[in-house]
Amino acid sequence: MFPYVTVNLAMSADGKLSTIERKQVKISGQDDFRRVDILKAENDAIMVGIGTVLADDPSLTVKSPELKEKRLSSGRDENPVRIIVDSKARTPCSAEILHKGPGRRIIAVSKSADPKKIDELGKYAEIVQAGDERVDLRIFLAKIAEMGIETLMVEGGGSLIWSLFEDDLVDEYYTCIGNVIIGGASAPTPADGTGFIRENEFTKLEIASMEKIDSGVLLKWKIIKN
Amino acid sequence: MFPYVTVNLAMSADGKLSTIERKQVKISGQDDFRRVDILKAENDAIMVGIGTVLADDPSLTVKSPELKEKRLSSGRDENPVRIIVDSKARTPCSAEILHKGPGRRIIAVSKSADPKKIDELGKYAEIVQAGDERVDLRIFLAKIAEMGIETLMVEGGGSLIWSLFEDDLVDEYYTCIGNVIIGGASAPTPADGTGFIRENEFTKLEIASMEKIDSGVLLKWKIIKN
Repeated sequence: MFPYVTVNLAMSADGKLSTIERKQVKISGQDDFRRVDILKAENDAIMVGIGTVLADDPSLTVKSPELKEKRLSSGRDENPVRIIVDSKARTPCSAEILHKGPGRRIIAVSKSADPKKIDELGKYAEIVQAGDERVDLRIFLAKIAEMGIETLMVEGGGSLIWSLFEDDLVDEYYTCIGNVIIGGASAPTPADGTGFIRENEFTKLEIASMEKIDSGVLLKWKIIKN
Repeated sequence: MFPYVTVNLAMSADGKLSTIERKQVKISGQDDFRRVDILKAENDAIMVGIGTVLADDPSLTVKSPELKEKRLSSGRDENPVRIIVDSKARTPCSAEILHKGPGRRIIAVSKSADPKKIDELGKYAEIVQAGDERVDLRIFLAKIAEMGIETLMVEGGGSLIWSLFEDDLVDEYYTCIGNVIIGGASAPTPADGTGFIRENEFTKLEIASMEKIDSGVLLKWKIIKN
């Protein structure tokens, strides 16, 4: 009914995705970069929130020529389907995701998105509507599962990841913990939003593996589904 | 010149010390509880910020009878010196730290603290003044080193820990990462405050050890001093 969802992120040793200015900073290194590229190439789709698009303007393409070749030779597109969760259709038409490299793009919008902007973005991506004011992730993920997306990697940011945890949609959670302290009460974290209030609401995890990577640590958690 | 400073905390797998309501929640388990008690018993002093006192009202006493006995038999007090960093002298006179168990207490205040409140608190603790508006931690830590405190454990919260990192005063950093997701953009994190802005300011760490503990992971980092 839903794709298998893998959340992947790099955080500082004090749990920050970046600084209070939300600028992209170096947290992990080359080994983690390669690991993430492999994970990306293995998934049917890769998804980010609009905040990440506006802050970092990532392309979300597979970087390694060998991994691209491998995808192509197995009959897939060079890149996984690239997805933006963008309730109000604020994605700039110049966003890297919409232009760099071949492959399908999907923008998830809510019914509150400006129809004109939807038309514009429709030139670059398939538009999927789900939810009234905000994208309803359970509806949206069910829709993309029907479209054939069985595995979905999520790269951020903290608001989207929070919503996925809140909706009990995450299956695996990778955190690469870098060897730096960033600090900042308002700096973005792996799961922002409103947060859980009561202990019995917390998402429960099970540690699947831990290893050193670059100068930090890679933790892989499995989510215990409700 | 300064005590050897060990920061110790438990955070969720998404880097939170507690919920947005700042209520104490279970993140680690019995094995980590015992480890923290041993660490506490090994240190000359244990320090928290006023925010932690107001939110959790901890006693910071050593819990294990054996560890207390061991301290006593080596000529030390049953508990390490308990320290509150409290710029404005807002510690309630009823705070657990001031009443539970034997041992010295120190309250660090700034020159901006109300002299009347300082007099009151002086009945329960030694008052050490350092800094004008806020406690100057470099001055304060130098003063307690002169008072014979060679090792200092810090239990939180995120504002105090941030200030210690900012002032390059931390030597070791233990994080017990629990198997839960808490979420919340405003939930307390290991290092709050203003945060570093530029990458070259980030505190750099070196991983010293990693192990499974309870249902989570314990990371020990050494700080690379500037």
